Parts: sequence; structure tokens; C-alpha cells
Amino acid sequence: MTLSNAAHPDQTGSVGLTRTQYLDLPRPLRLASGRELAPVRLAYETYGTLAPAKDNVILVCHALSGDAHAAGWSADTDTPTALDGFAADDRGVQSRGGLGWWDGMIGPGKAFDTNRYFVVSTNIIGGCRGSTGPSSLDPTTGRPYGVRFPTVTVNDMVRAQRLLLDELGISSLLSVSGGSLGGMQALEWTAVYPDQVASCIPIASTAALDSQGMAWNAIARNAIMADPDWQGGDYYGTGRTPTAGIGVARMVGHVTYLSAESMRDKFGRRLQDRPDLSYTVTEADFAVESYLRHQAAKFAQRFDANTYLYTSRALTYFDLARDYGHGSLQAALASVQARYLLISFSSDWLYPPRDSQAIVEALRANDKHVEYHNLETRYGHDSFLLDEDRQAPIIAEFLARVYEANRIGREGKA
Amino acid sequence: MTLSNAAHPDQTGSVGLTRTQYLDLPRPLRLASGRELAPVRLAYETYGTLAPAKDNVILVCHALSGDAHAAGWSADTDTPTALDGFAADDRGVQSRGGLGWWDGMIGPGKAFDTNRYFVVSTNIIGGCRGSTGPSSLDPTTGRPYGVRFPTVTVNDMVRAQRLLLDELGISSLLSVSGGSLGGMQALEWTAVYPDQVASCIPIASTAALDSQGMAWNAIARNAIMADPDWQGGDYYGTGRTPTAGIGVARMVGHVTYLSAESMRDKFGRRLQDRPDLSYTVTEADFAVESYLRHQAAKFAQRFDANTYLYTSRALTYFDLARDYGHGSLQAALASVQARYLLISFSSDWLYPPRDSQAIVEALRANDKHVEYHNLETRYGHDSFLLDEDRQAPIIAEFLARVYEANRIGREGKA
Repeated sequence: MTLSNAAHPDQTGSVGLTRTQYLDLPRPLRLASGRELAPVRLAYETYGTLAPAKDNVILVCHALSGDAHAAGWSADTDTPTALDGFAADDRGVQSRGGLGWWDGMIGPGKAFDTNRYFVVSTNIIGGCRGSTGPSSLDPTTGRPYGVRFPTVTVNDMVRAQRLLLDELGISSLLSVSGGSLGGMQALEWTAVYPDQVASCIPIASTAALDSQGMAWNAIARNAIMADPDWQGGDYYGTGRTPTAGIGVARMVGHVTYLSAESMRDKFGRRLQDRPDLSYTVTEADFAVESYLRHQAAKFAQRFDANTYLYTSRALTYFDLARDYGHGSLQAALASVQARYLLISFSSDWLYPPRDSQAIVEALRANDKHVEYHNLETRYGHDSFLLDEDRQAPIIAEFLARVYEANRIGREGKA
Repeated sequence: MTLSNAAHPDQTGSVGLTRTQYLDLPRPLRLASGRELAPVRLAYETYGTLAPAKDNVILVCHALSGDAHAAGWSADTDTPTALDGFAADDRGVQSRGGLGWWDGMIGPGKAFDTNRYFVVSTNIIGGCRGSTGPSSLDPTTGRPYGVRFPTVTVNDMVRAQRLLLDELGISSLLSVSGGSLGGMQALEWTAVYPDQVASCIPIASTAALDSQGMAWNAIARNAIMADPDWQGGDYYGTGRTPTAGIGVARMVGHVTYLSAESMRDKFGRRLQDRPDLSYTVTEADFAVESYLRHQAAKFAQRFDANTYLYTSRALTYFDLARDYGHGSLQAALASVQARYLLISFSSDWLYPPRDSQAIVEALRANDKHVEYHNLETRYGHDSFLLDEDRQAPIIAEFLARVYEANRIGREGKA
């Protein structure tokens, strides 16, 4: 069987209109911090059809600013889309009722082929798009949690997903995948539930953020908390939200997601809607300056600032080697059983190829199945959302092999 | 004559205690924006002795956060030093009454050898360390300018320096040098006063900032202006200054000045003064997080936020090709007469080697004298303040050759 044309545009389609669903977990979630969270609601979407043998489930995990709406067009036309920046520009996406953030990868004939696989996508706990997070009501006070929401980790996100899948009657995954923070969740799945995951596809991810990446996240969090409208996290219902702070946070994020080259290509030193310099310090004279302000304002409208803090904290805390290997990544990956496909991007300086390579080396040192592609791209970290055509055939072929091996394995056991 | 040991530590010394001087320009400064600035005061320091022939003058120009105090120890013990970050840590520098920001380069036997050369250093106009800037009193209102201060450009900075040198009776420069924005000033000198500058040493600089560099600057300015305590620029005397905003701006700047490698070396994922994660979103758990907060607070204390806006604007506006070559860098450098020494750093991703190389190529295409060194360093953009031992011998030898050639040239004319 060959799937080399699987992702060719003329053979692919859309999952169509989708609607986010919600599930309340039947019991409290015990968190890595030692605290307990209850009640816990998770927002999720599914695409494709669950096979009778329930052996075709792929969990896709979103990155910092994503949500459960990963594919198709939202049936709720009032829902803001998580797609923005270059990815939205390229597709002419409207800001509401929009396209899922990984629509280029999920659908009939696409990398995560919904003709074949059952794809599940959840909003992470701590999120602001339907899952329980800092903007949810704290049952002990009847008011939104704010920073009284317990700190969540990638491990907590994954264990919440595990409970959701239990409720859906799904015991094991054909694959788990995601980019960036989504890749961290995918990796965590294979460490915490080694016998429940046949394969893992972390894209543009890392086993632990490096100092510089931690610094960008710290700056973003500081920008939010420095905004007086943040009000110590209790801005809900006050009519004032830290739009300026989260705007600055988003600007920092946005620049780190792109390569210098791709910014040069798009903006250069072009002036924005003016023939000459304004000779002011306040105006956004240049296209790049105007673009950043626009992205900041748009993001501030759709995203909860406290969720940004919690999610940024979670991805900074993530450290596979510390959590599972006493500081050794090789030790942390000694007991995993999944087959791995790692993809990184040459122009990604936030989650650089070296971080993926470190995981590949640790897996190989443990004699694990691992396939690795470092793709030459120009878009930087955002390549995982933009260069889908390059990733799709690699993923489709990998999944087909895993599916086949998995089926044979189960038949052998039967 | 050989100067190969000129910068050897055991032959070098300090210029000792220094005191900043102030000079009021005798006439208004006509600015690139078309506006006029008056009165104009410039803060400056000098090191070494002006030769009777006045042929040994070197102007050093500071970067965004610098000041006139470039060398030696400030005699005014209450003056905050512009040296901070890794450079201050390395030298155990106190925050006040401190060491000049380029002390490693300026002094007896150093790169800019004060036994031989007369070094002049000014605080740029728009500055906050003694030169006229947005925190100065506007004579038309009797109140500080705030954002009514006219936008200044690198060209304005250079023409102000020209007027200062006129007052000091200095008609031409043996050399002009600086890193980053200081390098822009050096380049501008050779374009606007081609017959008055024998040599030019731009370090870690550029003929025009690229989109990504413009973006970092835009983020920093936005962070300041987003702080309600900025108050539209009129925070002077209100008891509230935008410390949070300029703190975030400084954090962004600080990370862009360093390489990912040097941050990894210094911080890794080390926790700061705690045995375990705090499981909060508000605490600075990691050393890198704590460091950024500390640097932000320190900088907010010593630096005026409006000056940050104006200086950041000036370096974003700087564009040699646009201003002197109708968009062509080669055309812009067609009439320069100086000998050039350019230095860039392999790990500098903010003012990357390619930017220096573009200048070198444009100069070579014009058959100009140019020498270029791309030094392998780990510190990123801040290498110009940190890896002085590597730069010093290159600069010392270059200057000795220029001085000699200049002397012979003048004797030939006499």
C-alpha cells in the first residue's frame, strides 16, 4: 500500500461544519502540584468515524493559543478562530466562524485522514475555549478562579485527556500528535501511558524548553501581570481586561514564531499606508509595526490573559528528563513503547532542530522506533501550521505503516 | 611600528576617575524632521590629550542605553552606570559611581589608547544622561517635553556631535566608532561629513535594521506606551513612571542582545533559590526568570522611558541606503572617504554578520578601503561589550595604520 499521494490537494477535502462538544469528567482531577481540580469540563471535537475495533484513534493536541476546533469550519459562526498571523493571511480566514487551526492536516485524504482515522481534539485544561480554566467559576467561591486556579502541567493536560477518552470508551491511541506545546503533550502521553499509545508525532517540539525560550515566556507573563487591568488576575466582570499586556505578550510570541527571513520577505522595511516617516514615536510607520499592533489587538479579543499565564507556565515547567529520568532524557525514554515520528524545521529558532534531535538520539540510544525529518522551511516555528504540504505525506505514510503494524500485532495476539 | 601587544592586559590601564562635562550649543539644531531644537545641551567626556595638531581625535558613540561615561570610574559616585547584564556581572560592577560602558576598550594601552589618542564620548541628543532629551524642559512651556520633544534621527545625533566638536575646536576625526546604534552614528558620520573622518569602526552594526529588529523595537515601545503610568509621555513630576513598561522593554532587549547559547551557559533550566517548582504563575522560579526581573527593575531605575522611545525610533528610522542612495547601499557609500574597519560577531542574531557583510560589499564595490572581521563569539550582540580582548588588537593595529597614513598624508600636503 502506498499513500504517497494521500495529501495531494485534489484528493483531499474538508471535514465540513463542526461543532465543539463538552464533557464533564466524572471525578476530580488530581494535579501534579498536589491540588485537586473539580469539576472539570473538557471541550473537544471529533472528526471521522471510530472503527468498531476502536483501533483508529488519533489524538491531536493544540499549542499555546489553540483550541478544540482543529479542523473544518465552525458551525458556531460567532466562535473566533485560533488561526491567525501568516497562516490566517495565507488562507484568507475570517476571524469568526473560521477554519480549524490544523485544517490543512485533518480531513478526508489529508495527513490525519478522516476517511480512515478517528481524530479527537481537546481544549487543554487551563484553557479558555470551553475547558475548565482560570476563567471558570470556582465552586468554592462562586466567582471565576483567576490566579486561584491551580497551576496545571503538561502531565495534568494529558491525564485529563485520558479521562475524556475513558468516557468516550477509547482505551488506546493509534497516535498522538501536535506541534510545540502540542508536541509536549504527545511526548508526555508516551511517557505516562507507554502501553496505550502505538505512535507519537511531536512536531517542532522539545523535551524541555531552553533558557531563551523560558525567557520569552517569562517576558510574556510579566507583560500581562504588569498591566494594571490584570488586577491580580481578578479582571473578570470588571469591564477592564489586560488587553495591552496580553497584546505585548502576543507580539513577543508572534515574532518568536517566525523566522527573520519570513518577516523580511513579508514586510522588509516597507512603510504602512504612508508616503514618508511620521517623525513621531507613537505611530506605527512601518508595515511590520502595524502588523504587530493588529495581531495584538485581535489576540487580546479572543484569548483569556490568565489562560495565557497558565499555559505559558505549563510549557516552561515541562521537562521530560527531570520528570521521568532524574535529569537524563535517555533514562526518561527507556520505557516508552510508541513508534515515533519527529519533525522539526530548519528555520525554527524557538523550538530548534537540535531539541528534536536530542529526543531522537535519546530514543535511538534506547533502541526505540524513531523516524526523524528536519524540513528546510522559511517560516520558523510557525512552519508546523504553514508548511503542511511538506509534512502531510510524511505523516500519512508513517501512520499507514503504524496502522498496519498495529493491526497485524493485534491479529497475531487474537 | 607594531602594536600587536597594545591591548595586552599587563600593558593597559584605566583612565581613572572621570567627570561628565556639559556644553550648550551656540545655536539651534535643525532636525531631519524639519523641526528645530533649542537650547541643546550635550553631555560629554574626554579621555587622553588632544595633540597640538588636533589629529588624534576619536569619537566613540554609544548604543541605545549608553551615556557619555564610556571609560574610567565616575567621580560622581551617585551616577548610575550604563554597564549592566553579563558585562556588569563579569566585572563585579556596582550600579552607581561605576565603570564606563566601554572601559575595556578605552584607556592607556587599550584599543582606543589614551596615551596616544584623544577620545571624545557624548550622550546622544534625545538622551537622558545630561544631553537635551524628552525629559528636558521645553522652553516654550517650562515643562518637560515628553512626546512633544521632536523626533531625532541618527543624522541629528551626528550633527549635534559635529557642533560639539566645533566648540572644542576640533575640525576632523581620526576615527569614529561604536557598537550597534553607536555603529550607525559612525557610519552616518562618514556619509554626512565624508572629508572630516579618516576612519570609521562600526561594530555589530547595520546600514538599516531588518524587519525582525524593527519588530523587537516596536514591541519595546509598545510595552512602554501600554503602561498607564506612561501617561501619554507626561509622567514627569507625577510620582508615577512607567517602570513596568520599560521593564518589559528591557527584558525584550536583553534577550535579543544575548545568544541562546550564552543564556544556556549561564542559566540552563536552573531554579533560583528554591528546591522545587513553586506551582504558581506569578513567581520567578527559574534563574533566567529571576535575572530578567532584576535587570528590568534596575534599568527602570536608571533610564528614562521617553528616551527609550526616541532612541528606539531613531535606530529604526536609520537607513543609509534610503537616505543617501535612493535605496542603494552602494550608491549611498559612493562618496565616502574614510577607511573602514567593520567587526561583527558570529552569535549576533540582532545585528547579524550579514548586515556588516552587506556594508563591506557595498564599500568594496566602490573601491573603498575596508577591513572586516567576523569574530566567533558566544555572547551574541552584547559581544561588542563583552569580548573586548578579541576586538582590541584588531582595532589598535587598524588605528595605528590610519594614524600613520594620516600623518604622512598631511606632511605630504604641508
